[in-house]
Amino acid sequence: MPNPIEFYFDFSSPYAYLGSEMIDELAAKYGRKVQWRPIMLGATFQKTGLPLLVTIPLKGEYSKHDIIRSARYYGITFKFPAKFPLSTQTAARAYYWLHGQDCAKARAFSHSVFRAYWVDGRDIADLAVVQKIAAGLGIDKNALAEAVAKPEIKERLKTETDGAIAKGMFGAPYFIVDGEPFWGADRLPQIEHWLKTGGF
Amino acid sequence: MPNPIEFYFDFSSPYAYLGSEMIDELAAKYGRKVQWRPIMLGATFQKTGLPLLVTIPLKGEYSKHDIIRSARYYGITFKFPAKFPLSTQTAARAYYWLHGQDCAKARAFSHSVFRAYWVDGRDIADLAVVQKIAAGLGIDKNALAEAVAKPEIKERLKTETDGAIAKGMFGAPYFIVDGEPFWGADRLPQIEHWLKTGGF
Repeated sequence: MPNPIEFYFDFSSPYAYLGSEMIDELAAKYGRKVQWRPIMLGATFQKTGLPLLVTIPLKGEYSKHDIIRSARYYGITFKFPAKFPLSTQTAARAYYWLHGQDCAKARAFSHSVFRAYWVDGRDIADLAVVQKIAAGLGIDKNALAEAVAKPEIKERLKTETDGAIAKGMFGAPYFIVDGEPFWGADRLPQIEHWLKTGGF
Repeated sequence: MPNPIEFYFDFSSPYAYLGSEMIDELAAKYGRKVQWRPIMLGATFQKTGLPLLVTIPLKGEYSKHDIIRSARYYGITFKFPAKFPLSTQTAARAYYWLHGQDCAKARAFSHSVFRAYWVDGRDIADLAVVQKIAAGLGIDKNALAEAVAKPEIKERLKTETDGAIAKGMFGAPYFIVDGEPFWGADRLPQIEHWLKTGGF
């Protein structure tokens, strides 16, 4: 079995959303699985000392334009949400709870959360919104609310975040292929070249 | 005549070097010219408040790895120089002096400066090194030394730098195609799509 591709992201990252719409298909083309790992991007800001991208003079304005143009370039539906940034810990905790039971359902839930925010502009920081998204996939919304409040789920998200940083993560999306890190949706062509050639 | 592509860069930017090895061929494929414009990247740091990329925790280490891998991916000869960063104002001033006389020679000089630094690790901050590079292209080294000391050439570099920042430049390479800004050598595929489709 070839190594799975590790995919670290925060639901609040627009470039991670773009990556999330493309990575599974790319991986499947080369017989690879993808391990999805939502983490708390705020923790990386503490390590790098960098401000939130969109708040940086000049670069912030450019990035908002680049994100929208990149979505068009990739053919991915995208709309910048009115509420940005927002907290994604409830959604990320719900992911790990679901992942413990049903990987495929956790993956479907992730796609739904990303699209609810980056297409429909819904407030995914709100537990009620996350519950509604989950209910649409046949997930018990009361069980979800209980799960995301549990100390072991909170701890899991912290552990995953620390683990990503230990592997060098500083921004999203962050992919690791055969131990090789790739940052950004714009590195998918290099990832494809890596998968095709077995490293370059 | 279609608009030329504006290419803003600093000779000390590794990603700008990668872009410099590809942009002319890409532009020519779609009947476009390229206006090369060396500027002082340090002035953009003052605007954005960002530190030098390679000094940022986690992101800096990644970037050094990414630059080398990206060069391999593009098939461009590259070697990280021992002296980094360094001042490029002498080389940039020499460019504008040459450009006033012979555009093609100024272009050839730019390629030679980039390669002297990013392939051969020469100290392009040193006037004597810049003179030697110029002499290799049949340029009078004494005339160059006189020119780069002139107030009007110094002023020209400042004006070009301010002009690039006024157009939103915050990092290198920075390309403008039909008024549309593209940052990074990794945006060349989007630039190509833009040239092919007339905007998207």
